[in-house]
Amino acid sequence: MAISPVINKAAIIGVGLLGASFSLALKEMNLCRTISGFGRSEKNLNRAKERGIIDDYSLEAADACKDADFVLLSTPVGAFSSLVNTIRGDLKKGAVITDVGSVKGRLVYDLESSLPKGVSYIGAHPIAGSDKSGIDDARPNLFNGARCIITPTENSDQDALNKVESIWTVIGAKVELMNPYKHDEIYAVVSHLPHIIAYALVNTVGDIDYKYIDYSGQGFKDSTRIALSSPEMWRDISIFNRDNLMKLLGSLKENLQEIERLLQTGDASGLENIFLRAQELRKRLK
Amino acid sequence: MAISPVINKAAIIGVGLLGASFSLALKEMNLCRTISGFGRSEKNLNRAKERGIIDDYSLEAADACKDADFVLLSTPVGAFSSLVNTIRGDLKKGAVITDVGSVKGRLVYDLESSLPKGVSYIGAHPIAGSDKSGIDDARPNLFNGARCIITPTENSDQDALNKVESIWTVIGAKVELMNPYKHDEIYAVVSHLPHIIAYALVNTVGDIDYKYIDYSGQGFKDSTRIALSSPEMWRDISIFNRDNLMKLLGSLKENLQEIERLLQTGDASGLENIFLRAQELRKRLK
Repeated sequence: MAISPVINKAAIIGVGLLGASFSLALKEMNLCRTISGFGRSEKNLNRAKERGIIDDYSLEAADACKDADFVLLSTPVGAFSSLVNTIRGDLKKGAVITDVGSVKGRLVYDLESSLPKGVSYIGAHPIAGSDKSGIDDARPNLFNGARCIITPTENSDQDALNKVESIWTVIGAKVELMNPYKHDEIYAVVSHLPHIIAYALVNTVGDIDYKYIDYSGQGFKDSTRIALSSPEMWRDISIFNRDNLMKLLGSLKENLQEIERLLQTGDASGLENIFLRAQELRKRLK
Repeated sequence: MAISPVINKAAIIGVGLLGASFSLALKEMNLCRTISGFGRSEKNLNRAKERGIIDDYSLEAADACKDADFVLLSTPVGAFSSLVNTIRGDLKKGAVITDVGSVKGRLVYDLESSLPKGVSYIGAHPIAGSDKSGIDDARPNLFNGARCIITPTENSDQDALNKVESIWTVIGAKVELMNPYKHDEIYAVVSHLPHIIAYALVNTVGDIDYKYIDYSGQGFKDSTRIALSSPEMWRDISIFNRDNLMKLLGSLKENLQEIERLLQTGDASGLENIFLRAQELRKRLK
């Protein structure tokens, strides 16, 4: 589909797997005239430029955002607020700020309220991350067929929302609008808790004898693949969504304690029922 | 590799994914003249015979084992002891009994001591199971390249051990000898605990709102794939290896509690260190 650019200049704040893939998708769909990158590592930005992921870059976020009408925050979420404070004075009137962060909730309200009048923030979360985190795995079709949750608030500008929604749609994502707090409740369950568990499981192996990991079959490999994910990124996600996570950790512990109780008493049919209940629910995803 | 049959008659006690794949592998390598199956479902046995997985079958385990010089136990492990009691009177002198069960430990000693003089038991555990459990997914090369742990004891007959070892080797498995209790300690960590966790994680989703599972990305899917595994099989494995599992559940809970404490106090760098430690260890499997 060839359409004329809807963005004059985009700024990609954080050129990693998601930022670089988004940039490549904008280019592939001819949605943008020029794309500027910002990041902490000049080496990475240089490689991204050489590979045609971005057109130019700056080591100053405000520079990269100057004259941009579309800004994507794609660093770890913990950096969003200070980045917005850094760039806010240099943002063009009418600019739309969005992101690819895995947490929304109060952060969405904090970001929208910290922007100057005439600049809009619309939160977004494409479900396309992985244990990879660098530009080497970036590809223009990363978001093709992926779900993208967009979390407008009662303060969101309708034009900005339409713009963000249509860009994600054009690059192939299946857009769904959701309340920011609801988003965090759901993704705490289906994404954030599983990451915490995977890290804790691998550390449990380390506590017993780290060499045992070499005996792993496909089951262990699959169930702990996400423990390869960026610790920095997941540190931020965990902290921002900690209220939901702590509630879930309580619920998980109850499930584990019930299993422990059944093991203790040797209640085989009780265990089978618990496993059966999980198997049934998991089949929804098959 | 064409070699002449080393087994005159084999009996496959439990014709599921592993039993059927082993049978197909024996046939493909021309290791056996005839293969008889036993199982609970005549329909399944009939299908296995029609597909050439087994040559004939019986609904009586002792019948299937009559005149067999090689017997593979490939039912859920909880059935092994009573099956051996059922067949022991009909076993041929010189017969070798082995299995594909995921638990060894005391069970190995119980089985070897319950067999008549002249019949040997050698425990084995090919690391090739999956969330699948029926003959539809059986294939002759399932064990090709897979690790197979063989757990002889101080009482094991050397000829029987050589035979079991060479059959697994010929069908492509990488054989490793191990103490039965050590086996259970290791596989509690890298297989049994992850299954328990996957079941508990899926049930935690169910406790909050089962429909949330529909929002899962690849991370959740991979980390809970093993919750699709047979509840009956994992009930038995959990019960047989419960001492190791309860110790590990204690260790897992400590890891989760440490994460909870860091979330509570908002200790981002503490969390990052924990995630980093797990990421580092998990990289051994990459």
